Parts: sequence; structure tokens; C-alpha cells
Amino acid sequence: MKIIVDAMGGDNAPEQIVMGAAQAAEELGKKITLVGDVARIQEVLTRYSIQEEWFDFVDAKEVISNEEEPAQAVRRKKDSSLCVGLNLAKEKNSVFLSAGSTGALLTGALVYLGRIKGIKRPAIAILIPNKLGKMTMLLDAGANADCKAEYLQQFALMGSIYMKNMYQLQAPKVALLNIGTEAAKGNALMKEAYDLLEGEEIAFVGNMEGRSLFDGDCDIIVCDGFSGNVVLKTIEGTAKMFFGGIKEIMRQSAVIKLAGALMKKPIKAFAGKYDYTAYGGSPLLGVNGAVIKAHGSSDATAIKNAVFAGYEYGQSKIISEILEKGIEKNTNI
Amino acid sequence: MKIIVDAMGGDNAPEQIVMGAAQAAEELGKKITLVGDVARIQEVLTRYSIQEEWFDFVDAKEVISNEEEPAQAVRRKKDSSLCVGLNLAKEKNSVFLSAGSTGALLTGALVYLGRIKGIKRPAIAILIPNKLGKMTMLLDAGANADCKAEYLQQFALMGSIYMKNMYQLQAPKVALLNIGTEAAKGNALMKEAYDLLEGEEIAFVGNMEGRSLFDGDCDIIVCDGFSGNVVLKTIEGTAKMFFGGIKEIMRQSAVIKLAGALMKKPIKAFAGKYDYTAYGGSPLLGVNGAVIKAHGSSDATAIKNAVFAGYEYGQSKIISEILEKGIEKNTNI
Repeated sequence: MKIIVDAMGGDNAPEQIVMGAAQAAEELGKKITLVGDVARIQEVLTRYSIQEEWFDFVDAKEVISNEEEPAQAVRRKKDSSLCVGLNLAKEKNSVFLSAGSTGALLTGALVYLGRIKGIKRPAIAILIPNKLGKMTMLLDAGANADCKAEYLQQFALMGSIYMKNMYQLQAPKVALLNIGTEAAKGNALMKEAYDLLEGEEIAFVGNMEGRSLFDGDCDIIVCDGFSGNVVLKTIEGTAKMFFGGIKEIMRQSAVIKLAGALMKKPIKAFAGKYDYTAYGGSPLLGVNGAVIKAHGSSDATAIKNAVFAGYEYGQSKIISEILEKGIEKNTNI
Repeated sequence: MKIIVDAMGGDNAPEQIVMGAAQAAEELGKKITLVGDVARIQEVLTRYSIQEEWFDFVDAKEVISNEEEPAQAVRRKKDSSLCVGLNLAKEKNSVFLSAGSTGALLTGALVYLGRIKGIKRPAIAILIPNKLGKMTMLLDAGANADCKAEYLQQFALMGSIYMKNMYQLQAPKVALLNIGTEAAKGNALMKEAYDLLEGEEIAFVGNMEGRSLFDGDCDIIVCDGFSGNVVLKTIEGTAKMFFGGIKEIMRQSAVIKLAGALMKKPIKAFAGKYDYTAYGGSPLLGVNGAVIKAHGSSDATAIKNAVFAGYEYGQSKIISEILEKGIEKNTNI
């Protein structure tokens, strides 16, 4: 298993990326390939007295930023850490991880690794912590703004295979994101997808509304990339409003401030528990290779967790199982 | 101005509805027409010693529940409080308010009042309190699961006219709900809507993501009914998760419980500030008559506030302005 990490992607690169990779390498007892500006990586190693022995280095002089148009950036910056890393990930038994531009990672993954045969569209799968202390997968979280019902059917399939393998679930429960729980609810896309999911060999539990997002009633929530991204950003906006409100309350009086000080730690722990950016990263499902997107704001711990997830993903049979199911499905159609 | 209230709609009917209507009637110094099972309404009046003089009563023996299929219920239950009330609302200078089934209210409004000439689809417009202490209108919040870009264009127009008249805004800022702030972002629908809104005589400020929902950067957020409903329910789910978390924290230790007791009141006030169900109700824009949907869980105060909003709406020039703009638009096309 080759673990390849884009050292230059993300808001805190290369520092936090390199540190997280070092922690992961040490805990796993496995060497990690760092791709990026080796001089800058070396600086970080020196500054934090990190041992070189945990790494192989592959130099890549360019960096793709979040502001660049993904397709153009991937085409032009062949010597970027993202493209060089993806090129290395062509090798069997490897995993590639980046906290860089989601769009560029997705485009690059399609260019360098391609889709799994039979899969129509890859999806970004986000893992959201639920109140049972487990994970609920939301996909697609934004790879495909416009979807057909068959894409959603394949998302359900891919999500099931991922959750089964990564979280040892016998039959992961799949729900469809909708605006009502009854079968006939929703827009034309969701109605059609409902029928397809009912006919699928998965544990389909029906429609689910945003109000039970964190209840843990299902393991996988399937939707189009537009709706999925709207959900994620609405959670973010609501959380921001809440923490802003709590801070405001704390300022109201000295006594409350004192009381609030006692709650600071548990509130922080609570926020951390639901912070999906800190866990395991997001697999790009449907891509013909193990690719993990870590959140742009990832710190060393988030990167370490994402490497752990990537290591497991890379070793698993997830991609070959998707290949099997995808082809099977398409010969059926 | 005739204020007509469905006394039987909502989770807390008729009690909270009647009480809220009584408070509104007294504060406004205006009689209100209560529609519903007069015997049950009288019981409430007696129990709470509410004076009859504030009301006219119109008997309606049936009630439409949330569980009924809207179109069927409206067709079959012509003697329901909802249908009888909407029939009364045909009268010029009237407003109808219900906390009953949203679907039935929408269907009923179309049957009894029809659409404003030139308007393709009515929309449910929800008013969400933002952190500036003002209101942001989200529409469509669920009337139309599938939308065309021209519907969104009209939603923007109707929302602008409503916010201008009700909140004395010179040029209410309109944003499009999207998954990125750049112009070319989103699905096919939003891209097309973006172009239409740019050509419209409104204060279009571009795309807005869910993460800035509560920031108050715009007065109106336009989207299809599926996405709008997903946003609302995601806010609800996230809020539920947060308040659950806070409660959990309070239980962690006696000291924190004590500290938490001090914060109970401000936390409640904070929650109340953002509780959109407590404010002014939701207008069904595009319907040829002033119709206000109050939240199903409304208590007396929420009903009172919704009656106030309805009273203002009924007196305003909103509908005639929409008529003007709608027709103008359609002769242009």
C-alpha cells in the first residue's frame, strides 16, 4: 500500500499537512509519499524536528489554488502537487489524499484515474457525525449539480459498499433526502430515484428530511450534488449562528461569563464531536482509485485521521466491489 | 378590512388560535371572523373568559388534517374551516389566515381565489430572522418542488414587492440560493435563473450560500421549493442537534448545571429570536388574495403576530403591484 499525500493543498499547507502525515506515518508504522515543493517541506521538517525517515519525497513545483478554474488548472499545471500525486496514484494499491481544491481534485481524478467501469458519475461523499456517535454518509455533496435518477441509484450502491467495508455494517441503511417522508413526496428527480432505490439490493429505508439529519436513523443519505451541498452549507450557516449566539450570551453579564467559562470546555467538545471536517476526509466514490479529499481547513489531526481512513480505503475491496456492481447494473439496463 | 381566521387549523387549535385572535383583535381594535366549529370555539371563549364581542362566527363543521391528500381534501370537504374561510376571503379587502395543512391551504387558495393574473406559480414565503434582528425572506419554501427559471424570476419580483411594502425597504436585496458565490455556479436551473434575475428591475445581489443564511446580507433568498424546503428542515435538524447538545452538557456536572441555570433564560431568548415560527406567518405569494400560513405549532402569540402581518398585508398594495408587474412581464415575454 502506497500512501500519497498532497503536501501543498489546503489552507494550512504545507505545515499542518506535513505534521499530520508525520503523525499518521508514525502511528501506522508506514512510510508516506509527500508530493510538493520539497524545499518547503524540508523547512517544516526542520522547524518541528520531524524525522525524514517517515517519508518519500516527490518534487512538484506548482500548486493549484481554490480560485483557479478546475479543468483549466488540471490541464495546465501538470507539475502541480495535485496532478503529480494523482499520476502516482495510478499505481495499484495506492491511495491519494489532498486538502486542495475539490473541483481540481475531482477533475484531476477523472483525468488521471478515470471512472470505475459502469459508473456514470463520481460523487463526493461526506461523513457527518450523528448523535449516536456514528457516521452518516451524505452523497453527492457537490460533484454533480445536475443529476439523473440513475446517478442517485449508483450513489446509493457505492455508499453502501463503502460504509459496509469501512464501518463493518452488515446492511447499511440508505435514505433519500427529501421534503417529506411519504413515498410520493419531492421533486421529479427524487420520485424517480425512490422507485429505482426500491428495486435495488440495498437496505433502502425511504425518504428522510433534513430535520432528522443527525438522528442516525440511516447510514447513508443520497441526493443530487446541489441539494447535498445546500445541506452542508446550511448546517454550517446554522452552526455559525448558534456559536455566535452563545458567545453573545456569554458577554451579557459577569456572572454569566463566569458560568459560561465552566461550559467552555464541554461546548468545545460538543462542537468538536459534530465537526465533520475533523474526521476521516471524504472519499471520491466512483473514481477508479482510492482518493480522499480532506477539508481545506484541515489541521494536523484532521489530516492524520484522513490518512487513516485513506489507508483503510486503499486496502479494502471497495473499488472492486463497486466495479462488480456497476457493471452488473449496466448489463441489466 | 375583513380578517378571517381558520380556528380549527394547526396543532393547538382551536384553543391557541382563538386566544391569539382575541389578543390581536383587542390590540388592533378590529373584529375578527372566526371560522370553525362554533360550539368548540365557544368552549374556549368561556374557559378563558374571552369576550365574544371581538368576533364574528362562521360555522364550519369539517376540519382538514395534515394527513389528508390536499387536493382530495379540498375537493371533498367544502364545509371545512379552511374552505369556508377561503370562500369568505374572495371578498375584496380581506385576509385569510390558517395554521392548518400547508398543502391544503395552497390548493384551496388556488381553487377559491386563483392566481394573480400573469403569475405562473404561487410560492410559500418564509420569513427567517437574521442576526441583524431583521427578516430575510426565503421563497419558495415548498410550494413547487419542480421549478422553471421563470418561476424563480417571478418569486424574486413578488418577494421584492412584499418586502418593500411590509418592511419599508427602498430596494430589498435579492439573492439566489446557490452552492457557490460566483456567477457561473450551480445547477442548470440556478444558472438560468441568475441570467433572468440580472435582467430584472430588482436589487439582485448575486448568489448566496447557506453558510451566510443568517447574516442579513440580503432581504430575499430565491430558490426552487425543493431546495427551500431542504434549507428550512436542515436548519431545524441542526437546531435540534444543538439544543440537544446544550442539554447534554448541562447534565454533565452539578456545577455546570448551576452555571447552566443562569444561562437558561438568555439561551431561551436567543432561541426565541431565531424562531421563525413565532413571527408574522408566511404569505402565499402569487395567490389572488391575502393568505397567510401560520406554522402548525403556533401558540397564541405566534397567531397574534400572524394576524398583525395579515392585517398589514391585506391593507397593502402588494397584490395589485404584483398584478401590474406580472402582466407587464408576460406581455414582454
